[in-house]
Amino acid sequence: MNRRILVVSLNPALDITHEVSRVEWSDVNRPAAVSSRPGGKGLNVARTLHALGADVLVVGLVGDRTGDAVRSALAETGVRAAFTEIVGETRRTFAVVDSHRGQTALFNEPGPHVSPAEYAPFRTRYETELGRCAAVVLSGSLPPGLPPDSYAELTSIAAAAGVPAVLDTDGQALIEGVAARPAIVKPNLAELSMAVGRPLAAVSGAAQAMVAAAAYELRDAGAQAVVVSLGSYGLLAVTGDGVWQATQPGRVAGNPTGAGDAVVAGLAHRLVLGRSWAERLRHAVALGTAAAAAPVAGEFCPDDYARALATARITRLGAG
Amino acid sequence: MNRRILVVSLNPALDITHEVSRVEWSDVNRPAAVSSRPGGKGLNVARTLHALGADVLVVGLVGDRTGDAVRSALAETGVRAAFTEIVGETRRTFAVVDSHRGQTALFNEPGPHVSPAEYAPFRTRYETELGRCAAVVLSGSLPPGLPPDSYAELTSIAAAAGVPAVLDTDGQALIEGVAARPAIVKPNLAELSMAVGRPLAAVSGAAQAMVAAAAYELRDAGAQAVVVSLGSYGLLAVTGDGVWQATQPGRVAGNPTGAGDAVVAGLAHRLVLGRSWAERLRHAVALGTAAAAAPVAGEFCPDDYARALATARITRLGAG
Repeated sequence: MNRRILVVSLNPALDITHEVSRVEWSDVNRPAAVSSRPGGKGLNVARTLHALGADVLVVGLVGDRTGDAVRSALAETGVRAAFTEIVGETRRTFAVVDSHRGQTALFNEPGPHVSPAEYAPFRTRYETELGRCAAVVLSGSLPPGLPPDSYAELTSIAAAAGVPAVLDTDGQALIEGVAARPAIVKPNLAELSMAVGRPLAAVSGAAQAMVAAAAYELRDAGAQAVVVSLGSYGLLAVTGDGVWQATQPGRVAGNPTGAGDAVVAGLAHRLVLGRSWAERLRHAVALGTAAAAAPVAGEFCPDDYARALATARITRLGAG
Repeated sequence: MNRRILVVSLNPALDITHEVSRVEWSDVNRPAAVSSRPGGKGLNVARTLHALGADVLVVGLVGDRTGDAVRSALAETGVRAAFTEIVGETRRTFAVVDSHRGQTALFNEPGPHVSPAEYAPFRTRYETELGRCAAVVLSGSLPPGLPPDSYAELTSIAAAAGVPAVLDTDGQALIEGVAARPAIVKPNLAELSMAVGRPLAAVSGAAQAMVAAAAYELRDAGAQAVVVSLGSYGLLAVTGDGVWQATQPGRVAGNPTGAGDAVVAGLAHRLVLGRSWAERLRHAVALGTAAAAAPVAGEFCPDDYARALATARITRLGAG
């Protein structure tokens, strides 16, 4: 049975991390540890799916020297990809981790400009590969040059091909994408708040009711299911099979970017396996917990995942 | 007539610069400008020589993804290179320029480890190319794994082939290199001080006499000529044709790394043209001034160079 998951990465990155024990902000520093890896939300999702044993194919846009570096770094992880080449240079992100002060400075380069002529062959490839896939993940920001309805169009193409889409983006791309009726959208609290145009918090039961109301709004706007990631408060899901809460006992600390991407991977993975919402949410919240504990986005420790699966609490709050 | 200059770059780098108007050291920053270019002292010298119209060939070691990036970035500048591939990844340097505070943080990755088996084909290529060159520049640090007498050996090979060597390095590599009788060594004040084992300053005439005494020591140790770069105090040279001072009136501010590399390029360029020490030092100090004024190492503005050439003051202090 075809269970391949197509992951779209329109604005990938090379993530470079320097660990420095006490940064001198106006002098020369010699990092104690240096790492670089394929990054951007789509590639984090793809790496997590690959680690879960899923059949994954990445399509997306890469360009110039840093594009080559992303391509070869991703190939080393074993994730298969069929990138479309663009002229502009793929972006880098640069993290300086000050291990003494316990703080991280992140420097995010702007993405390369993408022209309609560069996007056209990507879209053709996307349509071709969709026919061989059981689900598609549309994750991350749009690079400059692409219109904000790009994810909406990719979602519609997927729907026409009978392939469910999982959408994780923000701003106007999220609002327009929702209208194209994706199977699942996965905003975090800030993204949901921006999409509905009012402040939201997750600190109490009453606040969570407001989050659920906002999630309903995205559902009314077109999304078939809305899974809101709430950091240490877990997940709140408004689905065709009711309203659910997924929580993880104990304090969940760590890397929030990686955690959100792991949630998306967990949802997509159990979706193509045809599992229930209870099961999807159990795996998603456990993967999010395991990913938050890992130092690097796109990675998790299998033992952490197994432990989190055993302790995750899934509650059906209502019929929706 | 053969005037080709061979430039050795054993530990090149990809220099990445992010300009940020007010850096947040524990948050996300979006750089206003991003640039990347081939770096390391050898490649700065090679780019300066190329801009002067010299016939330049770079030999050296590059590895993995960042090695590919350095190779292609250098090719774009028009500098010809015949690199030897190594397994370890070529290093990056990362500069965060805080334009609001007027300060720069530099993060220098360690160089890749180089094994004797990787070095051997480089040395063979070096010997082959030497036969087609009128001078060789040995510039920059040695990567981990290479013994500190590496420049000494390369200098001896050049001497045996009748090719003068210009050496610009520091620490034990400088001390051992000097003993192999290079045509010119170009320490800065800190490097000279470390080589002779005592503190040096350049702020007064008396202090400069101490610098000259230290330069004599390197000459006694083997160097045929010693040109000390003193930042805004210009150059002090102990040569077979006497002791010289080269100064530039007015305040010289800016980029000290680029300035030292430009001095080396100026010395090598006038050496292969068969010019006198007065002429070599005039061009070297003027190029250093022009390079210090440029925002980027390895580059200079021709107008700055022409102006600095017109105002440079070259004085023969004694017969040596």
